Amino acid sequence: MFKVVLVRHGESIWNQENRFTGWTDVDLTEKGVREAIKAGELLKKVPYEIDIAFTSVLKRAIKTLNYILDANDLLWIPIHKSWKLNERHYGALQGLNKQETAEKYGAEQVQLWRRSFDVPPLQITAEDDRYPQKDKRYGRLTEQEIPLGESLKDTIARVVPYWEAEIVPQIKAGKKVLVVAHGNSLRALMKVLEEISDEDIVDLNIPTAVPILYELDDNLRPLNRHFLGDEERVQEKIDVVANPSKIME
Amino acid sequence: MFKVVLVRHGESIWNQENRFTGWTDVDLTEKGVREAIKAGELLKKVPYEIDIAFTSVLKRAIKTLNYILDANDLLWIPIHKSWKLNERHYGALQGLNKQETAEKYGAEQVQLWRRSFDVPPLQITAEDDRYPQKDKRYGRLTEQEIPLGESLKDTIARVVPYWEAEIVPQIKAGKKVLVVAHGNSLRALMKVLEEISDEDIVDLNIPTAVPILYELDDNLRPLNRHFLGDEERVQEKIDVVANPSKIME
Repeated sequence: MFKVVLVRHGESIWNQENRFTGWTDVDLTEKGVREAIKAGELLKKVPYEIDIAFTSVLKRAIKTLNYILDANDLLWIPIHKSWKLNERHYGALQGLNKQETAEKYGAEQVQLWRRSFDVPPLQITAEDDRYPQKDKRYGRLTEQEIPLGESLKDTIARVVPYWEAEIVPQIKAGKKVLVVAHGNSLRALMKVLEEISDEDIVDLNIPTAVPILYELDDNLRPLNRHFLGDEERVQEKIDVVANPSKIME
Repeated sequence: MFKVVLVRHGESIWNQENRFTGWTDVDLTEKGVREAIKAGELLKKVPYEIDIAFTSVLKRAIKTLNYILDANDLLWIPIHKSWKLNERHYGALQGLNKQETAEKYGAEQVQLWRRSFDVPPLQITAEDDRYPQKDKRYGRLTEQEIPLGESLKDTIARVVPYWEAEIVPQIKAGKKVLVVAHGNSLRALMKVLEEISDEDIVDLNIPTAVPILYELDDNLRPLNRHFLGDEERVQEKIDVVANPSKIME
């Protein structure tokens, strides 16, 4: 039986400030740190140890991972970091406040950008300060790889090949894998694992910093899925993500 | 011109408790955390960015590295962790208090264990709870690789091949490399870089959490070496290591 654990990072500063974050490399809030430590403590109760971890190149995910590993005395395990596990790139919306954006483009348009499967946000240009290649960590990406503003579909299209090429071989080798990532990169993984349709995936709400345990059969189909932690607390967290007073991406 | 930065981890709990630490995986003290953050801030002033980092599988080094990377907004770079960069294995002395050890074996014997080049400490046996293979992170090591108690010479004999096989190729590829490790594994690296004799290496005292910058020529011979930080503070730290009221290994 194969095992994989998914965790969405804890609250970030721009979650709190109600801004579209995407690839902006904002830090965890104090609450986010507490959530990450709590996730680590929850994972401690699982009767096996993680062997290898994957995360994005964004600090809110990396730090969440580090807190989890520290709580489990596992800081020594290998960690693979890739931009392929980054949050959905939110294009020209990155940094904008939800309120401002709704005033400028209309609430309906904003809802479409946020909750449709294949509508990309306003694109950034190569002149934009937010153009990924201006950040050293993305300097080696080809023009074709660089996202200028992704739909959920676009995000899935880069996450899934990484899953298949880098993560699946580790799982199949019997390694217990931990992936700490973002709302939309994790949607991609849960879509693949649970064969969720394009229509339904936009309604899947992943709670922050709740370890999601999968036990998988030989074909990597889920035998079961388990959200770690007090059921009521998990449901509250899902509700917050589903009906945010603040934008979570 | 090639570049490498070496940093010894900040103060650990057993430094503070005056115990032989070796491979025991003790945490940083609060002072150690402050030292690590300070090291990160010092490194920020260097006019280039680190591309890749190497550390041991011991949390006092990994955490020091993480604090340094966080201060430099570099948590996203690749990190390679290996037991080959661990502290000298202190054999059956691990966990013992300096005072107790001196009372039991005599101060002269303790000084020999601590400051000779090729005298190993009392060895542990496979029955010992401290036998490395009982710890998952060392489970794959062969009988021949597992140290039961190392002299400085033994430590150097496992650090240097790792340096040559894993770190040197990165430096020669033009990567700016950061190594965060331990008093004796860093002695091994400085011995190689500066061609220090077996006699002199035992007297080399490396201050904790002070970034040591090397600029190297094409043959990886040092063009210069620079201890980052206020000169007086660095000298104080070297004196503490050279004449400890507490044991630092």
